[in-house]
Amino acid sequence: MLSIVILGTGNVAKHLFDAFLVQKSVKITQVYGRNPESLSYFEGNTKVTSDISQIKDADVLLIAISDDAIVEISKRLQDKKGLIVHTSGSVPLDALPKDSRCGVFYPLQTFSKERAVNFKEIPLCIEALTEEDHELLKQLAKSISDNVHRIDSNQRKSLHLAAVFANNFTNHMYHAAQEICEQNKVRFELLSPLIKETAAKALAISPYEAQTGPARRNNRGTIGKQLNQLHNEKLKTIYSLLSKSIQKTYGEKL
Amino acid sequence: MLSIVILGTGNVAKHLFDAFLVQKSVKITQVYGRNPESLSYFEGNTKVTSDISQIKDADVLLIAISDDAIVEISKRLQDKKGLIVHTSGSVPLDALPKDSRCGVFYPLQTFSKERAVNFKEIPLCIEALTEEDHELLKQLAKSISDNVHRIDSNQRKSLHLAAVFANNFTNHMYHAAQEICEQNKVRFELLSPLIKETAAKALAISPYEAQTGPARRNNRGTIGKQLNQLHNEKLKTIYSLLSKSIQKTYGEKL
Repeated sequence: MLSIVILGTGNVAKHLFDAFLVQKSVKITQVYGRNPESLSYFEGNTKVTSDISQIKDADVLLIAISDDAIVEISKRLQDKKGLIVHTSGSVPLDALPKDSRCGVFYPLQTFSKERAVNFKEIPLCIEALTEEDHELLKQLAKSISDNVHRIDSNQRKSLHLAAVFANNFTNHMYHAAQEICEQNKVRFELLSPLIKETAAKALAISPYEAQTGPARRNNRGTIGKQLNQLHNEKLKTIYSLLSKSIQKTYGEKL
Repeated sequence: MLSIVILGTGNVAKHLFDAFLVQKSVKITQVYGRNPESLSYFEGNTKVTSDISQIKDADVLLIAISDDAIVEISKRLQDKKGLIVHTSGSVPLDALPKDSRCGVFYPLQTFSKERAVNFKEIPLCIEALTEEDHELLKQLAKSISDNVHRIDSNQRKSLHLAAVFANNFTNHMYHAAQEICEQNKVRFELLSPLIKETAAKALAISPYEAQTGPARRNNRGTIGKQLNQLHNEKLKTIYSLLSKSIQKTYGEKL
């Protein structure tokens, strides 16, 4: 059985805790959180501490805290037995202590407290310095997901950047659509089937093939009319830039 | 039973044809297409013509052709008995002939030949000049969808604009993510669970609440690093503008 300590009490830490808790092959021996109040979620099911000097040894010490704090906390773990692993998309493996056994365990998904997560399908991107530690992380990852990938720090950095477009910026487009609906007193929910189909279609036939709309058809009449419809300068600038980008994408390749 | 003639042979025409064909309360009496070859899809199941003077009377004449051609073709239908209806999001009702019975039947979805469509859930936005014609369109719409809405031309124009953000621009973000993956030799498919969850989460808790990422947290360090990662000027400009827009959205309201 693998023993793990989880460091962190945020959304990623909670969802990983929930996923590992029900695995027979994994034992969560402790959860660390700086703020004692944040530990109440965990304390019925494992030991908890807010004193970093009290962190125990374990096969894997899993750091699930904000990117900026990873380097600092990992230095405090150097005397521990066990593999020191962070869960960030953007922090390279070599940011962890040079003389320790280190690794990365990056779940490529958006986590929030309001939404349950099915880890089975979530890509877990793992990286380690040695084959032995890679095997250890693979075993840990496979206990909760069927979608485990060996990804190096450069690839992970690219995936994280791609995810900013596919998640953060996509969501901001939904928000813009919602603003337009609200300003014009139509229900945003009417767009629900369109939003679902847009995602499904891009994944089924590729985003390049799935592109439609006035910019894709280079229909300048409609583009001009829609720009006039927008009174919000922020949305006007976004509409204009993205329409040009679509026109350029297809103009170049046609 | 309602009789309908469909004018047009593109994706919208084909999907509407398929949906109405299996309804007992609707009879498709004819399909018109300018190009005789484009009629082969329909001719086993109804009468077809490429001669506009041969179009028959029907309860509803359903125009499913490109926006630019709607006004022109509707003028050729003025002598017909029946309600003249177009299926466009952006063409107002009053673009149709003044002295005729007119309406709009706008399915708010993205259609492509590669993807089957479940009309039951698709919002059908209907508009007519008289209550009687509105009832007629409602009956027609309800025969294929459980999601029928009375929407006027201004609201429809807004929905169409919102759909450009929610579909066209969102898909372009997926395309950007795919470009980044390909340039860095990681599989775009790894983003599939993230893309699905992004859509589901925005619809469940609202895009405003669902926003995450470096711009949402106003994490300038990560924004700067990710901008440096991008070598494609087009993507750099998009990254920069959308990050600023997200920062502004949350900065203003925090």
